[in-house]
Amino acid sequence: MAAAKKLAGMLAELGRISDEPGRLTRTFLSPAMRRANRQVGKWMREAGLAVRVDGVGNLIGRLASRNPKAKTLLIGSHLDTVRNAGKFDGALGVLLPIVALAELRQRKVKLPFHVEVLGFSEEEGVRFASAYLGSKGYAGQLSASELKHRDARGISIAQALAQFNGGSFSPPRAARKQSNLLGYFEVHIEQGPVLEKEKLAVGVVSAIAGQTRGKVRFRGKAGHAGTTPMTLRRDALAGSAEFVLAVETLAQSSPGLVATVGVLEVPGAAPNVVPGETTLTLDVRHARDGAREAAVESCLLAAQEIARRRKLRFDWQRTQQNGAVACAPVLAALLAQSVRAVQGRSLSLVSGAGHDAVVMSALTPVAMLFVRCREGLSHHPDEHASPADVAVALRVAENFIERLARNASAKTII
Amino acid sequence: MAAAKKLAGMLAELGRISDEPGRLTRTFLSPAMRRANRQVGKWMREAGLAVRVDGVGNLIGRLASRNPKAKTLLIGSHLDTVRNAGKFDGALGVLLPIVALAELRQRKVKLPFHVEVLGFSEEEGVRFASAYLGSKGYAGQLSASELKHRDARGISIAQALAQFNGGSFSPPRAARKQSNLLGYFEVHIEQGPVLEKEKLAVGVVSAIAGQTRGKVRFRGKAGHAGTTPMTLRRDALAGSAEFVLAVETLAQSSPGLVATVGVLEVPGAAPNVVPGETTLTLDVRHARDGAREAAVESCLLAAQEIARRRKLRFDWQRTQQNGAVACAPVLAALLAQSVRAVQGRSLSLVSGAGHDAVVMSALTPVAMLFVRCREGLSHHPDEHASPADVAVALRVAENFIERLARNASAKTII
Repeated sequence: MAAAKKLAGMLAELGRISDEPGRLTRTFLSPAMRRANRQVGKWMREAGLAVRVDGVGNLIGRLASRNPKAKTLLIGSHLDTVRNAGKFDGALGVLLPIVALAELRQRKVKLPFHVEVLGFSEEEGVRFASAYLGSKGYAGQLSASELKHRDARGISIAQALAQFNGGSFSPPRAARKQSNLLGYFEVHIEQGPVLEKEKLAVGVVSAIAGQTRGKVRFRGKAGHAGTTPMTLRRDALAGSAEFVLAVETLAQSSPGLVATVGVLEVPGAAPNVVPGETTLTLDVRHARDGAREAAVESCLLAAQEIARRRKLRFDWQRTQQNGAVACAPVLAALLAQSVRAVQGRSLSLVSGAGHDAVVMSALTPVAMLFVRCREGLSHHPDEHASPADVAVALRVAENFIERLARNASAKTII
Repeated sequence: MAAAKKLAGMLAELGRISDEPGRLTRTFLSPAMRRANRQVGKWMREAGLAVRVDGVGNLIGRLASRNPKAKTLLIGSHLDTVRNAGKFDGALGVLLPIVALAELRQRKVKLPFHVEVLGFSEEEGVRFASAYLGSKGYAGQLSASELKHRDARGISIAQALAQFNGGSFSPPRAARKQSNLLGYFEVHIEQGPVLEKEKLAVGVVSAIAGQTRGKVRFRGKAGHAGTTPMTLRRDALAGSAEFVLAVETLAQSSPGLVATVGVLEVPGAAPNVVPGETTLTLDVRHARDGAREAAVESCLLAAQEIARRRKLRFDWQRTQQNGAVACAPVLAALLAQSVRAVQGRSLSLVSGAGHDAVVMSALTPVAMLFVRCREGLSHHPDEHASPADVAVALRVAENFIERLARNASAKTII
């Protein structure tokens, strides 16, 4: 597979374009992002795509169909990274379709639709308190209030974009009308261990989980660890321990649910003091909003019962809530056919992490292909997808585009 | 009770002698400690005691018996405090016997033994990494190695004591021979909630609990809270939660045992990360060393079982271990008779906190009387023992000294 080898080389080369020496960091509108756009744009042109950069720094490579009235298929992901990143998260989903389209061109496959390969300028939320700036800009979803968010040096998103555009900046409208789009397809590393566990190179995403996040606080009474008998304690940590286990037990018994207490702090803790107060975080995700909301409700009821029984006070503050995004069933079914054609078996997965596809789903139906990554690791320099798995993903993507082409010709989809 | 009123006034006055404006802090050899020694020494002299300060700053007031060959009864506690302290911890046990002896003198009670009232210069361990410096000095237990400990400014205990003595300092021998002592009696606030719960002003200490302290660490695998399914997690916090509850359940089912996880930390915690590592502290106390050691063993076995089942790694490091100290049964029985004579009912308590009596027990048999304190609170400006409870303690102490006098005359004790 010369194409897969070429893709591996491109991933390695893009992985060396960084704002920091010795490690990979590319943030929104940074010098490295400009260099990345130049390099990836060069690859796009070599594959026959017409290249432009839009007002929010998104790199867009367009392969026009012969039929000017054809719809457009969007394929992409993001080119920015977290700090000290791996070289697959985002980059794989931008570079893979470039190679796939070059392959199809070499094989003289004619597509009855336009294709736009999108390299979004921002997804990770590193520089500003906002994430998905690239896809939001493309989808016409950047709000004036969001543009006021400032980075650590006090520069607002609007200011940074005005400077980038050499003048003023106004939030753009959607780059494409919904009616002119076929859908959005994103290839991404799984960032989880399921495909590795199932011994599969790739899997089809059925939905991107909704998420509720909040802060929990238990307050009891601090006491001397030596002089306070067990029967007279109101130990906030022991109550919190029950809560952590109740959350875990609930999630273990609810298919598709993940629930996590990631932070547990004991303010003023000392080895010889019975904990009087704790603060915890709760993160609950599920592909069905109703299931997630019911799970959050169960967690809070459990906390209230624990607090009542242990004479603790309990507070809950919701800090974040996002609804689930379903991948388009028709696209997911076609993608599963391609997966079966290439690797024999197709597994359907829910994405627990957010992706550009969440934003793009407001504009057009979305499909996602996950690629196995070693030990589920991401956001780390050791992040790794094997060349063999990347080759499988490339063949699946080519097969999927061809399958869409056949269906579009027969007018059976969308 | 004019005497109880006088004692309350003395406690208030001593509570204003501080190294810090606006709050009570008196630390080892500080200017406030010198002023406290002068003021308490004045009260001692008014009560007929001969006053001296020894080489480690202990204030000693001696009431000699007519019989020069008589033994000596020691009564005392410490005059130093924690930072931002209450005015009862330590001070009560020094001032109360001064007033009790003045009362007995007024009532012309003749004692067949000498009495020394001891105001130890250091018990709280605030300035140096060592505690009990006063009673250790009196009991001849200060070691050369301990004297090398340094305060925050790099001054060693030996240097501080040399300066205090206007020259050099050598660790003193015990101030009294064991054979010349009747015992040591200490009155102290309970620092716990038992007497308040039992609606009793005072109680008799049967033993001072032994203590094991250590650090626990669980290590699992950090993971993405959205993409790591429940079945593939190795959550160090969930394992720790089981441990916290196992410790609590064990202590609740073992009479006299207290066991506490006071600190729980999750290094690198984030709301969207499955905790990969935790560190905890364990503090286990019991009046019987065997029961404490068995409890520690049970906690460690529970941790190992949790770690094995959850595929976590578990480490344990013991950081402190002190054996239990039993109060002398004969003295405790006499003290209980006095308590019954004054308040009708006598309750026997184990002290979960350490006291000067722990050190003094190496020199002579010890007895302790606990006084109820509001909400079990100590080491805090709101620390409070009611005037009525202090009055009960004063009457019990007088009764106990008279009872000892009768028994000593009849040669039935010690």
